[in-house]
Amino acid sequence: MTEQPRTGPQRKADTLSKLEAVNGDVWVATASNAGAAHLVPLSYAWHGERVVLAAEADSVTVRNVRGSGRARLGFGPTRDVVIIDAALDGIVGVADGAATEVADAYARQTDWDPSLDPGSLVFVLLRALRVQAWRESNELSGKLLMRDGNWLF
Amino acid sequence: MTEQPRTGPQRKADTLSKLEAVNGDVWVATASNAGAAHLVPLSYAWHGERVVLAAEADSVTVRNVRGSGRARLGFGPTRDVVIIDAALDGIVGVADGAATEVADAYARQTDWDPSLDPGSLVFVLLRALRVQAWRESNELSGKLLMRDGNWLF
Repeated sequence: MTEQPRTGPQRKADTLSKLEAVNGDVWVATASNAGAAHLVPLSYAWHGERVVLAAEADSVTVRNVRGSGRARLGFGPTRDVVIIDAALDGIVGVADGAATEVADAYARQTDWDPSLDPGSLVFVLLRALRVQAWRESNELSGKLLMRDGNWLF
Repeated sequence: MTEQPRTGPQRKADTLSKLEAVNGDVWVATASNAGAAHLVPLSYAWHGERVVLAAEADSVTVRNVRGSGRARLGFGPTRDVVIIDAALDGIVGVADGAATEVADAYARQTDWDPSLDPGSLVFVLLRALRVQAWRESNELSGKLLMRDGNWLF
């Protein structure tokens, strides 16, 4: 059964709920300089208006985002989607201890505290530039919620 | 509760079940020539050892895959993942009617029959080169199921 399309403010509220949900994963798409797409699911936190990921410093995702400064994030399930085009806002070594606030937020929202065994893990901070959200095809119109880093609602 | 890691043959069987599932969506990651990652959820069918997508001929996904010949596909949910690195095997206009068998398979497996209103839709055929599958972190070892287009199990 297809529901009525949601309003913009409703979609924004639902999007923030999804970003704040505990133990969620996000599909992280990045591209290499050579133009090869990479895609991997990662745990995430939403902190200070940034999507925070934790990954190995030499992983394909971190190398790509370091090179391009960009990532495209897909939050599912696929029929309740949020898509974020994001810009790299910083990469901080977990072992540096310089990102205590980020580390705390990350450990609170996920089921994993990287600082317990930091190795060569880094936190990747991604700032949303463009946000889209839709459920079924009747919501494709009006899917744009943020443009150039500014919420439209 | 974390289960025991599955064997390779078990993971292959589960992967084929996922590929054959009715009304599933796949996260399709592609990259532009300029190295920008794109990501979008699409319906899919599994036909003749190919992942079949349907999309607008001038969509970012079709433009990217036409340019690079590659896509990376993520089948969820994120804690029961299949990742496929795929090569473009063909793009056929839905209106051409040249791909009747593909169209039938696609309509059977999805809840959408593009040939009813073909417009500028195309079928995109993607051949798996590399397949990985895992659930929790205890399955990261042994996640490789196909290499260079050949199943390992």
